[in-house]
Amino acid sequence: MCLQAFADRDINLSKIESRPRPEAPWEYLFYIDVDGSLDAPEVQEALDRVRPLTNRLKVLGTYPRRAGDDIAPTPAVDAPAPAAIPTEKPAPAAACPATPRNPQLKNVNPRPDGARTTVNVGRASIGPESFTLIAGPCAVESRHQIFEAAAMVKDHGAVILRGGAFKPRSSVYAFQGLGHEGVQLLCEAGHAYELPVVTEVVRPEDVGEVALHADMLQIGARSMQNFGLLTRVGQTDRPVLLKRGLSATIDELLSAAEYIMAAGNHRVVLCERGIRTFETATRNTLDVSAVPVLKERTHLPVIVDPSHAAGRTELVLPLALAAAAVGADGLIVEAHPNPENALCDKDQALAPDDLARLVARLRPIVAARAETD
Amino acid sequence: MCLQAFADRDINLSKIESRPRPEAPWEYLFYIDVDGSLDAPEVQEALDRVRPLTNRLKVLGTYPRRAGDDIAPTPAVDAPAPAAIPTEKPAPAAACPATPRNPQLKNVNPRPDGARTTVNVGRASIGPESFTLIAGPCAVESRHQIFEAAAMVKDHGAVILRGGAFKPRSSVYAFQGLGHEGVQLLCEAGHAYELPVVTEVVRPEDVGEVALHADMLQIGARSMQNFGLLTRVGQTDRPVLLKRGLSATIDELLSAAEYIMAAGNHRVVLCERGIRTFETATRNTLDVSAVPVLKERTHLPVIVDPSHAAGRTELVLPLALAAAAVGADGLIVEAHPNPENALCDKDQALAPDDLARLVARLRPIVAARAETD
Amino acid sequence: MCLQAFADRDINLSKIESRPRPEAPWEYLFYIDVDGSLDAPEVQEALDRVRPLTNRLKVLGTYPRRAGDDIAPTPAVDAPAPAAIPTEKPAPAAACPATPRNPQLKNVNPRPDGARTTVNVGRASIGPESFTLIAGPCAVESRHQIFEAAAMVKDHGAVILRGGAFKPRSSVYAFQGLGHEGVQLLCEAGHAYELPVVTEVVRPEDVGEVALHADMLQIGARSMQNFGLLTRVGQTDRPVLLKRGLSATIDELLSAAEYIMAAGNHRVVLCERGIRTFETATRNTLDVSAVPVLKERTHLPVIVDPSHAAGRTELVLPLALAAAAVGADGLIVEAHPNPENALCDKDQALAPDDLARLVARLRPIVAARAETD
Amino acid sequence: MCLQAFADRDINLSKIESRPRPEAPWEYLFYIDVDGSLDAPEVQEALDRVRPLTNRLKVLGTYPRRAGDDIAPTPAVDAPAPAAIPTEKPAPAAACPATPRNPQLKNVNPRPDGARTTVNVGRASIGPESFTLIAGPCAVESRHQIFEAAAMVKDHGAVILRGGAFKPRSSVYAFQGLGHEGVQLLCEAGHAYELPVVTEVVRPEDVGEVALHADMLQIGARSMQNFGLLTRVGQTDRPVLLKRGLSATIDELLSAAEYIMAAGNHRVVLCERGIRTFETATRNTLDVSAVPVLKERTHLPVIVDPSHAAGRTELVLPLALAAAAVGADGLIVEAHPNPENALCDKDQALAPDDLARLVARLRPIVAARAETD
Ligand SMILES: C=C(OP(=O)(O)O)C(=O)O
Ligand SMILES: C=C(OP(=O)(O)O)C(=O)O
Ligand SMILES: C=C(OP(=O)(O)O)C(=O)O
Ligand SMILES: C=C(OP(=O)(O)O)C(=O)O
Ligand SMILES: [Mn+2]
Ligand SMILES: [Mn+2]
Ligand SMILES: [Mn+2]
Ligand SMILES: [Mn+2]
Repeated sequence: MCLQAFADRDINLSKIESRPRPEAPWEYLFYIDVDGSLDAPEVQEALDRVRPLTNRLKVLGTYPRRAGDDIAPTPAVDAPAPAAIPTEKPAPAAACPATPRNPQLKNVNPRPDGARTTVNVGRASIGPESFTLIAGPCAVESRHQIFEAAAMVKDHGAVILRGGAFKPRSSVYAFQGLGHEGVQLLCEAGHAYELPVVTEVVRPEDVGEVALHADMLQIGARSMQNFGLLTRVGQTDRPVLLKRGLSATIDELLSAAEYIMAAGNHRVVLCERGIRTFETATRNTLDVSAVPVLKERTHLPVIVDPSHAAGRTELVLPLALAAAAVGADGLIVEAHPNPENALCDKDQALAPDDLARLVARLRPIVAARAETD
Repeated sequence: MCLQAFADRDINLSKIESRPRPEAPWEYLFYIDVDGSLDAPEVQEALDRVRPLTNRLKVLGTYPRRAGDDIAPTPAVDAPAPAAIPTEKPAPAAACPATPRNPQLKNVNPRPDGARTTVNVGRASIGPESFTLIAGPCAVESRHQIFEAAAMVKDHGAVILRGGAFKPRSSVYAFQGLGHEGVQLLCEAGHAYELPVVTEVVRPEDVGEVALHADMLQIGARSMQNFGLLTRVGQTDRPVLLKRGLSATIDELLSAAEYIMAAGNHRVVLCERGIRTFETATRNTLDVSAVPVLKERTHLPVIVDPSHAAGRTELVLPLALAAAAVGADGLIVEAHPNPENALCDKDQALAPDDLARLVARLRPIVAARAETD
Repeated sequence: MCLQAFADRDINLSKIESRPRPEAPWEYLFYIDVDGSLDAPEVQEALDRVRPLTNRLKVLGTYPRRAGDDIAPTPAVDAPAPAAIPTEKPAPAAACPATPRNPQLKNVNPRPDGARTTVNVGRASIGPESFTLIAGPCAVESRHQIFEAAAMVKDHGAVILRGGAFKPRSSVYAFQGLGHEGVQLLCEAGHAYELPVVTEVVRPEDVGEVALHADMLQIGARSMQNFGLLTRVGQTDRPVLLKRGLSATIDELLSAAEYIMAAGNHRVVLCERGIRTFETATRNTLDVSAVPVLKERTHLPVIVDPSHAAGRTELVLPLALAAAAVGADGLIVEAHPNPENALCDKDQALAPDDLARLVARLRPIVAARAETD
Repeated sequence: MCLQAFADRDINLSKIESRPRPEAPWEYLFYIDVDGSLDAPEVQEALDRVRPLTNRLKVLGTYPRRAGDDIAPTPAVDAPAPAAIPTEKPAPAAACPATPRNPQLKNVNPRPDGARTTVNVGRASIGPESFTLIAGPCAVESRHQIFEAAAMVKDHGAVILRGGAFKPRSSVYAFQGLGHEGVQLLCEAGHAYELPVVTEVVRPEDVGEVALHADMLQIGARSMQNFGLLTRVGQTDRPVLLKRGLSATIDELLSAAEYIMAAGNHRVVLCERGIRTFETATRNTLDVSAVPVLKERTHLPVIVDPSHAAGRTELVLPLALAAAAVGADGLIVEAHPNPENALCDKDQALAPDDLARLVARLRPIVAARAETD
């Protein structure tokens, strides 16, 4: 909403940073770099529009663009966006010079200065400056269901809406999702509730159409080494949520990300979602260690999906807390207005109350991280 | 060559069965059902042509086609074949009435009478009546290489030539195969040496073109749950070699086969190729148990790839012997005229000598099976 | 020290509870039930002795013992203690009536009223009321080393000192620990720094002697199904730290605990320390899900060992935070005054600075839990 | 029986070799080196006694002992034998000079000349010269049961009788075996049917007593890293059957063998019995690759237990065939006169008919190996 004020006036926002306010978790400070003189009337006008929507607005100063910077704004949700590159913080983290650089992972490797990438998804962003909550049903089931779901997740502070329209199901006879119509419904719900949306693509031939509408493309665990699909999403300008395969090593996950980046799309978010082990008490075994290991080996943001690891609603909350504590940049969780009626993964869906509890319990953990990082 | 004699005269061979001769392993008895009267001149002519090429030829008798039989000949290598159904033995094996039938696997489930399926691949076949050796390089590298490889594998008794043209590589910067040109070279080598060919497909959009040329389509381990690809190969009439995923359960492999069959293509061969475990002494852990378990749960043929399990040339031989003993219907092995120059998987390639030794050692094991089955 | 004041006067402390002070993590409120009248002179005398050692002392009231209560005091560190039963909170948590009760786990199963057990270890305790930090070197190496280690861990707020004297090493030629002499040194360091100690036992024949001195007996991952050893420690009155085997299921861990309890010793603490999977980026894969699953299936306390999961110092901190967030009742970490000289597991040892950072980072996570539980 | 003739006369048999007769599998040629002159009357007398018990007896010649040979006879079943070293073939196999020698495995490493070890167990032996079948019930249940079992396994050609008296059970409430009385019954049955016996030990304190009676000591999968137990059996002169742990790497298995050998007992036989993976269709996943890998890394014999891998009777046969084909030196299988009444592991027990079929199917595989090795 804020950003619209600038967009309407054709002012480039060359950098958007958000910082959680330590004293008030889940409220954020936004740092925005504006292309243009502070004195320009359209800039002043935009700032005036934004002021009432925020708690505090402060202009920190002006400085000329650095040469070589080609940082572009995140594409607006509904605009067919030009190739965009994620906003990067100049040098927030300590450099890690000792990490051996793997030439096979040239785009994925840590940056020499240790800077971590933030990937913008519509008006949300995923990166070191915030803890991003993505929530929504496993599958889009109907207009009614996805609108209810969108309302519910918005209410509880999620900033991106998830919902599968192309479901990769082990059985050919299981519900396979609503396809492009599902994507359509998801996007409508996202618009209505001002939530950017993420949805899975499974066939290369669907990617073009889905990328026209959805804000972020999800590559599922079963597709992590579907190299044709990786290359195809790498040819779009949409951010990509890349899930770790059920038995993929961390290095293979990084190699999969390199496929996407080598095709030109640098807006990749990695996601740990549980690996396959001998233990049957959980659907998969959440490998929380993957988060710090990935942070050593790449500059890309890392989030966690506790839902597909847990497989049971009651376990989603503790795993989510573990993920927040271990340093994930956010979470993607399955939430459904009515879990008992869910067509897919109902045993692991969070009901509205569960989601409320999750957010309440996450808040102090996230604040704790912010305090001490 | 034999079959050509019938094809030239437009005589339908409605069933081709081969039986290993127990006293002389790797020699086979062929049982051929001919559509037509024994008295017809073109049938006599064909039989005359065949006689000198075989050691023994015996007409076992004539009988009218049973109603309901819609068994069709295997499509010739280079003909755009009509939808074909694998030749089935009437009732060779004991029925297994107790096996619970999974409605999600209706095409894959064991047949009520326990009959096992034979899948014809060009003039070769894979099923309970024979032990089929597929061999060739990991990747097609050049015309010279694939012709040398074809000569080598033909020499040592392999009946299908393998060679990858679309290689799914963990790293985007690794050799990815020669693509459609590689398929072309593979097919030329196959024709030259009268070997049907199998090659991997990885993207749905390539399937149509590859299916025009190759005799069998391979679905790699990393694609076992690429459901779009499964459906796509299910829409062709080519036999499909479906490999088990690195961490796929046996039931998930069967569910993947059901995807192909549900799309209309019943000519599916399953392949165990090693699963991912904690053990690092081998590239993967060959799960030989999968063979008897699969035989309980499906009528489809099951072969084993010892090469990708072993990861090292020296281990391919013992694993191949284990696979033969455990009841596999055949093997697919990587063999290269010049392993040290291989562009892909060189550490596990069999050199000509290794292949010779493999065949020599397999012979008595296969004979032993035949004696006691 | 506090408790000594009561012990000196032969006053039974029938219950000791500690609560973290939410506003000041790592400070605790102690609730002590005293056997005897508040007016008795020896009780008054004892309270007078204790007062200056605490920040606040408040007598909450007096009440008669409930019938059927046979809760005994935790054995003092150096007294050959009679059979003791862990102090239990009357009914702190919600009952979980729905959990199916496994008759094979009759001692381990959740209590009907959902109460969780606290296990006292010398003057420390492990249970739902506190977050207990156990730290110390992998192995006791010398008097100097273990005293330095004890000073270091005491300094940073650990309340139990660990140190292995009998080391189960994969190689017979690796350093196997100092044996009973190592236990002796560990106990001396523990006394000097007023830290109860935990040390591993590996052979049944050593248990009696070690139990005379150490405050807690550790059963290592490799011994989790050493049933003779389980029974032997079950015959002592020492609390037992039972580690999950490298490839033990959660149910097998519970069954192992039942062995100890069936032998008469109910003071068992379970420990998740990483399981073996295909991933090689970490020494083991920490299964954080085990914590909430165990809490559903047993009333016993559950702690986490992030060190043996991580295998590398840098990963210990994030895994420790995850463990705290997921609901563990405490941690056991390897810390060494001089990691580069450690004789065992040096790559995963925390140096003094690392331990300081760990505690600083844990504090707000633990506080966050306390706020919202 | 044959050997008794020499023992009665105090004649040392310095080498005993058996060779399967290729034309008649499961019959063997015995090559015996006799200490002493062929002309000595006691030698002639012994040969006369043996003649009628064999099909053919041929004296191949006489030669003086080589210097440095300290090969001792296998201890007789019931004699408290002095430290004995397994009979070794002079140089049957090709040397493997390239294998890197691990100093941590100095006793376990391949011999410089590539010679493989044969371990004698009573009158049976395990090594490259034969394929040894060990069979019997999971547990000794009663005198009647174990005598029936002994009769059954003898009948079908097994040469060593197995039976557990100390059962390591996940649940403390499950049948734990008959203990020393079970060992006694097993030995009586073994004597009655002239079968040496193998039985598991689980506690160091039982080893001495069991070693007095049993011919071979089994270390179970759960005890593979019970280092105290390994050392204890290493102090006896009984051959040891060392099973691979459920999630032990091949290298850890070798390190465990080194513990036994370092304690002085060189008569170790390794056993692959299935590892723990994600696949649930079998109790464990039989890692047949372990056999050739072990043969590269050690001179010790390697056998396979298909029963504990399979978990179901129907799968034992195919896994046994795979083990024979992959190069195992023998098998240990669970067989019970009455599987439905078995107190332990009944689902995987072979009934008499199953055992007959197993042996019939193994015969040609073993013969095939002999032909081509
Ligand atoms: C199928 C999903 O996840 P995954 O690919 O991780 O299994 C999903 O997010 O709904
Ligand atoms: C890549 C191959 O195999 P898999 O898919 O089993 O890894 C191959 O056959 O070359
Ligand atoms: C050996 C140890 O741990 P584990 O048994 O978990 O490997 C240890 O605590 O030092
Ligand atoms: C328990 C047994 O085997 P394992 O130790 O391999 O599980 C057994 O042989 O009965
Ligand atoms: Mn889902
Ligand atoms: Mn390959
Ligand atoms: Mn350690
Ligand atoms: Mn058993």
